[in-house]
Amino acid sequence: MTLHQNLYLQDILSEPESLRTALDRYAAQTLTDAAARLKRGEFSNVVLTGMGASYCAAYPTWLRLTALPIPVSWVETSELLHYAPGLVNARTLLVVISQSGRSAEILSLISGEEAVHPALLVGVTNDLESPLAQQAQVVLPIHAGPERTVSTRTYLNSLATLLLAACQLLESPLEPARTALRAAADSGEAFLAHWEEQVSVFRHGLGLPQRMIIAGRGSSLAAVMNGSLILKEAAKVAYEGMSAPYFRHGPLELADENLTLWMFAGAAKTRDLNRDLAVEAQRWGARVLWVDDQPDLALQTLLIPAVDDLARPLVEILPLQLYSLAAAELNGMEAGTFRRIGKVTDRQ
Amino acid sequence: MTLHQNLYLQDILSEPESLRTALDRYAAQTLTDAAARLKRGEFSNVVLTGMGASYCAAYPTWLRLTALPIPVSWVETSELLHYAPGLVNARTLLVVISQSGRSAEILSLISGEEAVHPALLVGVTNDLESPLAQQAQVVLPIHAGPERTVSTRTYLNSLATLLLAACQLLESPLEPARTALRAAADSGEAFLAHWEEQVSVFRHGLGLPQRMIIAGRGSSLAAVMNGSLILKEAAKVAYEGMSAPYFRHGPLELADENLTLWMFAGAAKTRDLNRDLAVEAQRWGARVLWVDDQPDLALQTLLIPAVDDLARPLVEILPLQLYSLAAAELNGMEAGTFRRIGKVTDRQ
Repeated sequence: MTLHQNLYLQDILSEPESLRTALDRYAAQTLTDAAARLKRGEFSNVVLTGMGASYCAAYPTWLRLTALPIPVSWVETSELLHYAPGLVNARTLLVVISQSGRSAEILSLISGEEAVHPALLVGVTNDLESPLAQQAQVVLPIHAGPERTVSTRTYLNSLATLLLAACQLLESPLEPARTALRAAADSGEAFLAHWEEQVSVFRHGLGLPQRMIIAGRGSSLAAVMNGSLILKEAAKVAYEGMSAPYFRHGPLELADENLTLWMFAGAAKTRDLNRDLAVEAQRWGARVLWVDDQPDLALQTLLIPAVDDLARPLVEILPLQLYSLAAAELNGMEAGTFRRIGKVTDRQ
Repeated sequence: MTLHQNLYLQDILSEPESLRTALDRYAAQTLTDAAARLKRGEFSNVVLTGMGASYCAAYPTWLRLTALPIPVSWVETSELLHYAPGLVNARTLLVVISQSGRSAEILSLISGEEAVHPALLVGVTNDLESPLAQQAQVVLPIHAGPERTVSTRTYLNSLATLLLAACQLLESPLEPARTALRAAADSGEAFLAHWEEQVSVFRHGLGLPQRMIIAGRGSSLAAVMNGSLILKEAAKVAYEGMSAPYFRHGPLELADENLTLWMFAGAAKTRDLNRDLAVEAQRWGARVLWVDDQPDLALQTLLIPAVDDLARPLVEILPLQLYSLAAAELNGMEAGTFRRIGKVTDRQ
């Protein structure tokens, strides 16, 4: 079977179209009532929760929502359920993200003996028949269509849907955000049009390094975390993602000729901090891939489309998805095909 | 130079004594006023922040404090500073953990243009002359003494000091907690007395696997995260730590004969969930090390001392510290000696 027929690749290539669908169908009135209640002081805090790719997808929205006058938490559902249920009380706005709407942890959280009881449950899901969609007072459909294996469209559409939801809760205008995200979908489509060349460059130029770390900060951590996750799922390779400052506080000790470091340039305000660290790791002998929207003379740059700050997470994941195709092939695996898990995680 | 003369080993072996010092010197009146203000509703939220080992050390305390009636956040200082400063406002109880009290991110957070202005700043530090100790309204010294390389005593003493602080904020009696933590220091000492045998077992029986993942949940995540960090710093090996449920939601795809999985049994309430996952990974061919205080007939068990739930994080890190000694040797490195970074991270 050639890569062209691979279902996971087909899912990746269909992301831009699917993203446009999610953006176009996002209903402006969805969170109007929740935003009004928030403004009236009816909520004491906001909690964003999910597992796996859904958990990663919520990170940029968590950072944005910390600008709200009430505290906002981002927490794995498993930890929330067993060890931190006190974060949710009768005045909490709880946002649960689950493409299937039926992961084991999600079911326990929203129903049954251990269920929490928030002021408002918002469900972000791809399955409108799921328990999450049925229990939620407000449902945000992600319109990703059926997905067979590793999260691709569901990840990106969750990311985009949550960013639009954040605009509503922050009372920031929806249409400019929608326009910026749509532009990123178009730029991403242009980027993916060269998938074959890009995969080939990864296959021959990068290969399967002995050790690889993926780093960034701010909203780039969504791609850092999700990239590390999909490389394990789709290619069965174990490369860790971490924040760039965490890398400086210890793992920089790994920097030598056996280390490959992906560093996301990210937003302008912390770009120079990331760049200094990338240059330092390179000086110690590490191979560095600098992921930015402009070339850098001192670093091997992996160019991604230039987009609005809000939309950067949508394009930052794309090179990691394409790398996962090359890595799977080099690792002797059929990219994106599950051998151990199912599409829905029905056990905790 | 033999391992017996290694400074990092000496630091590890001095942990129990240092822990007892920190526990004995913790002053019961330290947070009395803060606890009273909390009870009077003067704080709207609590934020725990740090970098590296200090960040890991705060995790069990974060989980405990989520039982408070106000929201509690646990966040890397770098992200708080640049992307989530809104989490701290004039009604926030901010707890900053930094053994040096002068990491670059800490300095920016507590002074200078980007500084936040909480209702109360509590500093948990090993250096009473540091900027953090000088700026904080309440200082919790960790009494770890001078430490030359990788965090050992400073990690454990931060962990223990924070757990006692949590008791005070939760209005839970201090003395039983102090007694439970002291018992763990004694049990840890008995465990470390066999360090040479344990290191030898790791050297010959475990070696340097191609891929290793360290997993657990709840308060075990402190050892999972800090263990992954010190293996990189002390032994220059890249093994990832993650939550057990996160492992189930994707990375379980890695399970085959090339994977070694450390799984912490952890607290009784989620022990069976972790065990089922460990057994499943083993069925797929992975080598599993089950870290528990009682032997398990179906899994290769790494026995740690049986201690109170509160104190478990103090003993869970010990086998990972001893493994880092074996791993460094097998990797041709002098254990715990920095080659790239300094003891104080003075750049962001």
